[in-house]
Amino acid sequence: MDSQRLQRWQQRISLELEAVVNFWLRHSHDEKYGGFFTCLGQNGHVYDDLKYVWLQGRQVWMYSRLYRTVPKFHRPEVLQAAQAGGEFLLRHARVAPPSQKCAFVLTRDGHPVKIQRTIFSECFYVLGLDELGRATGEVRYQEEALKMMEAIVRWVREDPSELGRPQLTGATPHDAMAVPMMLLNLVDQLSEGDAKMASRFAELGSWSAQRILLHVQRNGTAVLENVSEDGRELPGCMGRQQNPGHAIEAGWFLLRHAQRQRDSALVSQAVEKFMKQPFHSGWDPEHGGLFAFQDVDGLCPTQLEWRMKLWWPHTEAMVAFLMGFAETRDPELLELFDKVAEYTFAKFRDPEPGEWFGYLTQEGSVALSIKGGPFKGCFHVPRALHMCKEILDSLIMEVKSINQE
Amino acid sequence: MDSQRLQRWQQRISLELEAVVNFWLRHSHDEKYGGFFTCLGQNGHVYDDLKYVWLQGRQVWMYSRLYRTVPKFHRPEVLQAAQAGGEFLLRHARVAPPSQKCAFVLTRDGHPVKIQRTIFSECFYVLGLDELGRATGEVRYQEEALKMMEAIVRWVREDPSELGRPQLTGATPHDAMAVPMMLLNLVDQLSEGDAKMASRFAELGSWSAQRILLHVQRNGTAVLENVSEDGRELPGCMGRQQNPGHAIEAGWFLLRHAQRQRDSALVSQAVEKFMKQPFHSGWDPEHGGLFAFQDVDGLCPTQLEWRMKLWWPHTEAMVAFLMGFAETRDPELLELFDKVAEYTFAKFRDPEPGEWFGYLTQEGSVALSIKGGPFKGCFHVPRALHMCKEILDSLIMEVKSINQE
Repeated sequence: MDSQRLQRWQQRISLELEAVVNFWLRHSHDEKYGGFFTCLGQNGHVYDDLKYVWLQGRQVWMYSRLYRTVPKFHRPEVLQAAQAGGEFLLRHARVAPPSQKCAFVLTRDGHPVKIQRTIFSECFYVLGLDELGRATGEVRYQEEALKMMEAIVRWVREDPSELGRPQLTGATPHDAMAVPMMLLNLVDQLSEGDAKMASRFAELGSWSAQRILLHVQRNGTAVLENVSEDGRELPGCMGRQQNPGHAIEAGWFLLRHAQRQRDSALVSQAVEKFMKQPFHSGWDPEHGGLFAFQDVDGLCPTQLEWRMKLWWPHTEAMVAFLMGFAETRDPELLELFDKVAEYTFAKFRDPEPGEWFGYLTQEGSVALSIKGGPFKGCFHVPRALHMCKEILDSLIMEVKSINQE
Repeated sequence: MDSQRLQRWQQRISLELEAVVNFWLRHSHDEKYGGFFTCLGQNGHVYDDLKYVWLQGRQVWMYSRLYRTVPKFHRPEVLQAAQAGGEFLLRHARVAPPSQKCAFVLTRDGHPVKIQRTIFSECFYVLGLDELGRATGEVRYQEEALKMMEAIVRWVREDPSELGRPQLTGATPHDAMAVPMMLLNLVDQLSEGDAKMASRFAELGSWSAQRILLHVQRNGTAVLENVSEDGRELPGCMGRQQNPGHAIEAGWFLLRHAQRQRDSALVSQAVEKFMKQPFHSGWDPEHGGLFAFQDVDGLCPTQLEWRMKLWWPHTEAMVAFLMGFAETRDPELLELFDKVAEYTFAKFRDPEPGEWFGYLTQEGSVALSIKGGPFKGCFHVPRALHMCKEILDSLIMEVKSINQE
């Protein structure tokens, strides 16, 4: 292993994590109502006070996780903000209890503005509250997370009617990869260090992993975002749609699952099909960076931003390649980590006010100067930095112990 | 008047209209089920066979209008395709009759795929069928259009419950400019050359124009897309949102209304507030072209495509400035027409395969190579070319008759 390279990244990433978290600590707390402002401009000013439930749940998770696992962030202000965010969710996220359905976006003081007919607000509600329970030791948060998890699983596997989507004869039932990905991520969260939960959710974890694997199509050469329920390619744009960053993120979700299951065949599938292949087809050979969307037949996608470079595919690729390297010691994966991380630090990072830009043009210039918005909050950047740092710590520790032998 | 300039544009536009219509005649007809393919790649190949109801209605309108008013297009194939599109809409657009609610998108053979909780599918259904009635002389199309129009007006002015949008305590009731714009456009359509309809819809026309005028904010210096029901600025991004092309399109809708009403004060408001002002604030001084979105405080919009140059704001600006010039003879408006039209022809037009690109980067290079998609069909480009040609014909005729005196 190239231990100098690992140490250099460990230092850069460690400093960057602190800078990024400080940005959110400084600018995002709503002291009056609890919860977080996530619509933050380049310098951190609040340009809108709407509260997106995805981003509330994610920030509760991030703060709780940092408080619980990183000594530097084990500080009362971090926990207090996480808890104020969790309480805000408990008070306001569910639109019409006893229904478990959550709003997509709330006013600053918690009134529902919009509901999505999907499961994702609820998923981030689970993610945040489970981790908050671990950070605070208060079991009521985890109980609430579990109750919501049950509703989500029921909606996905049994009866989606509570989501409110009309059943239409032209809408082919299909599997959108985001759904099993999200479930696998939640199984990972709920099972962590808890044998009882791990056993309770084992079947759901395997089911989710199998659903994700259905998205490997075209004789194993492509990951497609949407497939039929029985794993066949769908017609039209929807069927041909690729999202390289999403495939790579699924790669590290699958890799963690494979590690837990000690499934070496799945390790190799995760690395080859969900990391290397989407990287090689999704990386812009001309300007660098991962495309936001692609069409597997090389046609022009209909998403206006398809050529743009978004922050989160790059943070997910950093995590995936480093995790893949730590697992397999395949040197290509460390090279890929290095390539993506260099691009990402050079293009997305905004050193002075802190945090990262979210949206670049194809050429890599800043297209939107915001640091947070309806879909970008305190999550992908600090999660990736935190996870990469943990992996690097452990790799470096290993190098040191080898050298001492 | 600069009659040479007018004649040069008349020739360019006339040839271009023919080329554009030929593109749709050649590539978009579904001979099997009726209706139109609108997901067309650069060379016209069908990359998806979904049928978006907005675009079906718009193409029925465009073909019927061209058939009815332009001798060159008064051909059986044009009318037959329009009628097959109209029959497709009659058979399939309404999801669950007797409800008037239409689908947003249908499969090729007419099964509903998605429903939007808005009025726009229904509006383009009205637009298409009314004009088809005029082209064919078959009154049943206009009767159907009128029945749908009644439902739309009821949803907007009395009871939106049939649209299926939940009433949420955090969702401030507001006026989205698209709604009164669409209604004013439909009043224009339904009233054309029909004194009975003009009288029936006179109050709705005035109401719609008044609603649009509520969007002039900031002491008359800006048109904002969303305002409160009583015409005040709303907080947050939604309140600050500007869409220069949309404001300019509203400008020519208002100008036509002002012409019908012989309201010279409204003519001047339409020109100054909805044409010149949005153009001057929305035109990219660096690269040319109109921005897709802006924030009235100069903050960064959250729409990923805000810097991009979309085709339709430019076609609408061509119509608006030429119509404004014909009405007022203000030479600045002819200069603006010339500037926008030169940019538009240079950047969006794709001479060889025909039709125009829809989506450019800020710098003016092609971002999406498609000629049609979920939101771009046979409408804005031929409508603008057709309207501009009619205005130019009449201006040139006037010059000639002056010269002969």
